Amino acid sequence: MSEEHHQAPPRQRRLRTQRMEAFSDGVFAIAITLLVLDLAIPVGAGRADLLHAFLAQWPSYLAYVVSFSTIGAIWLGHSLITEYLEQADGVLVRLNLVLLLVVSFLPFPTRLLAQYLSSDDPERVAVTIYGLTLLAAVTLLSLLWRYAVRARLVRSDAGDEELVALTGRLTPGLAGYVLLLGLGLFKPVIAVIGYLLIALFVIIPLERARRSGHSRRVDSR
Amino acid sequence: MSEEHHQAPPRQRRLRTQRMEAFSDGVFAIAITLLVLDLAIPVGAGRADLLHAFLAQWPSYLAYVVSFSTIGAIWLGHSLITEYLEQADGVLVRLNLVLLLVVSFLPFPTRLLAQYLSSDDPERVAVTIYGLTLLAAVTLLSLLWRYAVRARLVRSDAGDEELVALTGRLTPGLAGYVLLLGLGLFKPVIAVIGYLLIALFVIIPLERARRSGHSRRVDSR
Amino acid sequence: MSEEHHQAPPRQRRLRTQRMEAFSDGVFAIAITLLVLDLAIPVGAGRADLLHAFLAQWPSYLAYVVSFSTIGAIWLGHSLITEYLEQADGVLVRLNLVLLLVVSFLPFPTRLLAQYLSSDDPERVAVTIYGLTLLAAVTLLSLLWRYAVRARLVRSDAGDEELVALTGRLTPGLAGYVLLLGLGLFKPVIAVIGYLLIALFVIIPLERARRSGHSRRVDSR
Amino acid sequence: MSEEHHQAPPRQRRLRTQRMEAFSDGVFAIAITLLVLDLAIPVGAGRADLLHAFLAQWPSYLAYVVSFSTIGAIWLGHSLITEYLEQADGVLVRLNLVLLLVVSFLPFPTRLLAQYLSSDDPERVAVTIYGLTLLAAVTLLSLLWRYAVRARLVRSDAGDEELVALTGRLTPGLAGYVLLLGLGLFKPVIAVIGYLLIALFVIIPLERARRSGHSRRVDSR
Repeated sequence: MSEEHHQAPPRQRRLRTQRMEAFSDGVFAIAITLLVLDLAIPVGAGRADLLHAFLAQWPSYLAYVVSFSTIGAIWLGHSLITEYLEQADGVLVRLNLVLLLVVSFLPFPTRLLAQYLSSDDPERVAVTIYGLTLLAAVTLLSLLWRYAVRARLVRSDAGDEELVALTGRLTPGLAGYVLLLGLGLFKPVIAVIGYLLIALFVIIPLERARRSGHSRRVDSR
Repeated sequence: MSEEHHQAPPRQRRLRTQRMEAFSDGVFAIAITLLVLDLAIPVGAGRADLLHAFLAQWPSYLAYVVSFSTIGAIWLGHSLITEYLEQADGVLVRLNLVLLLVVSFLPFPTRLLAQYLSSDDPERVAVTIYGLTLLAAVTLLSLLWRYAVRARLVRSDAGDEELVALTGRLTPGLAGYVLLLGLGLFKPVIAVIGYLLIALFVIIPLERARRSGHSRRVDSR
Repeated sequence: MSEEHHQAPPRQRRLRTQRMEAFSDGVFAIAITLLVLDLAIPVGAGRADLLHAFLAQWPSYLAYVVSFSTIGAIWLGHSLITEYLEQADGVLVRLNLVLLLVVSFLPFPTRLLAQYLSSDDPERVAVTIYGLTLLAAVTLLSLLWRYAVRARLVRSDAGDEELVALTGRLTPGLAGYVLLLGLGLFKPVIAVIGYLLIALFVIIPLERARRSGHSRRVDSR
Repeated sequence: MSEEHHQAPPRQRRLRTQRMEAFSDGVFAIAITLLVLDLAIPVGAGRADLLHAFLAQWPSYLAYVVSFSTIGAIWLGHSLITEYLEQADGVLVRLNLVLLLVVSFLPFPTRLLAQYLSSDDPERVAVTIYGLTLLAAVTLLSLLWRYAVRARLVRSDAGDEELVALTGRLTPGLAGYVLLLGLGLFKPVIAVIGYLLIALFVIIPLERARRSGHSRRVDSR
């Protein structure tokens, strides 16, 4: 906060990022926890053979783990972006609200996936709706970052190659989602596992970019 | 906090705003995320033709987007108000609790809207109940601000024309909601789209007033 | 934090209050917002005459408002207590967890109240279960405060008469709840309105005690 | 934050713990509050004799209390670990996400327990699934701590015997859970009460270790 540009022209409308971060954290935490409400076992099936009925719900567990991992990965990416943010402006706040809209919508396609995976035809529709939602979320996260860089909202002490590296890191997922959307029309379950792998992959390499952001952070606090 | 009026007379009962802000943020984030729980597809319809059944739920998606945008706009307005607040008193805290009551009630009229939009007669009742809830929320937000200004709870360094501009910005929505309430009796869907436009309009211009509040903020932190 | 008793004997186990406060705020905000999930209109009834069906749900709205006000009042009392707290110890943290257990349990008796108010015999049972839950919550809040005072966990600069005044303020509700529990066996609806009045009464006078706590606060921050 | 190792080699990738803590707090608070959604009374049963129907739901209340206490105990353990944490790295953040996945999954086995406790055969399956989930959560909490110590992410001023004492404190529960998993195949209700006792036991002794961590904390803030 001590590094604000006091000479910022009126058009740029800098806003503080703190409240946006707190509100986003709340929405991420609630969306990720609401996923459990759709895990259920049909009462009749459970009373006869609970273990069998429990295991028969595997599409629910798969959908749960994929959505949990994806929201976790997006949360990680989001917290990485806000770590670089020095200020926010009106466009960024609105882009962030649209991202939150898609993230808090995700439990619905997750429910569809859980219901229709391993059924015949609806399976493809459910996987496609699910994949489009994931693609929208990841695209918005990427847009959020690109806009922040272009509008010079990021810390002025962040090096150019650092920003380029982070941009690259937030992009490869996009191509993967597009590929899996096509694959999902033929092999729905494989596509869902692909979505899980992307999420896990995004969770893992993020830290490399993070380290340098962090060491820079130490003295500005 | 460093600018407290130590000479404040006992009657004014200044309270700190921090905890009120955190609690409100929690309620806003949860209310906005609970909206997804009412998105569902009738099981029978889905199994036959999921894509058709998914698209047939358009009133649900419309209601979801309108309520999400409205809560988002109210949250933005609320965070703008608390940014100007220097202190809180008992009346303000109670007004805020009433505002939160209406905001956390909103998922219920949203559900009614999703169920009855595009049905015959109940449609009008649902849209009217929904509109009245929105009007109550926006009126309370406006009251919260007017009370804060009148009771001199806002920062003493905020200029008069700045406060007047913000008061104007938080008011035009009110007339719009009243007009749409009437329109909703004849053209329910059009009224709902009107509610969406107001929310988007409120989200956008808020930042202009914010900028000046922000630059003032920098040195008091 | 700067006023810690460094000479505190090992037995007293001072803990920090910050994380306890954040976790409690989360639980209060979620419990108060989950109440809306139990507002619903039977589908058949709604399609015939939605306005009538909407108004017929008045027990739900009454239960919603009473529970919202009560959780709001308990949250206010809780935030008042933690404002006086200098430290926490193990007993306090556990008492607080039991209070949170009762508060997050409240949506269940609220649902019973909404379902059975205005039916014949179950009405009395529902109101009694509801009243017992409120009594438990308020008793635990009072215990939390009394324990904090007795274990000398409150700020050492708080005057004795101030603490006595706050103790009195957190107690009168208790007698009211016991009286209303008896009344509820004969006049259930009147008892529920009584619970609402207590909550509103608790919300209002709390600020008087708060003012002095607040002015003391200013310099310790 | 002032004690960062500026000479940390790139491989160690230190991340800040603050956002991880806030996100975890949100998930814990939501998971613990969602438990109430599964408390319900069959409408027919309630209308006949509500008191009887209310008391007949005892497995639900037992499951509610056990899960609430266990999440409470894990939250306490988690907040204890993060108090010792000086930094986070990528492995820790991922371990933490897996822990949160299991914690936010817990309402589902809790629902199974509530439904099938006191029925004949499914009871054993429900108790075993429930116990396995608890065991997974506690194991992950223990792994989180052991990893933090081994990767030298804890404060450098924490004494070795202090760390060993804390490691011991987070471990005994594990053996208890394994024993109760076996017992649950023969005496399901006894096993559930055992899970409750472990949770209460974990809540209580944690503070002893906490005290020393706290007094150390005072000057670093």
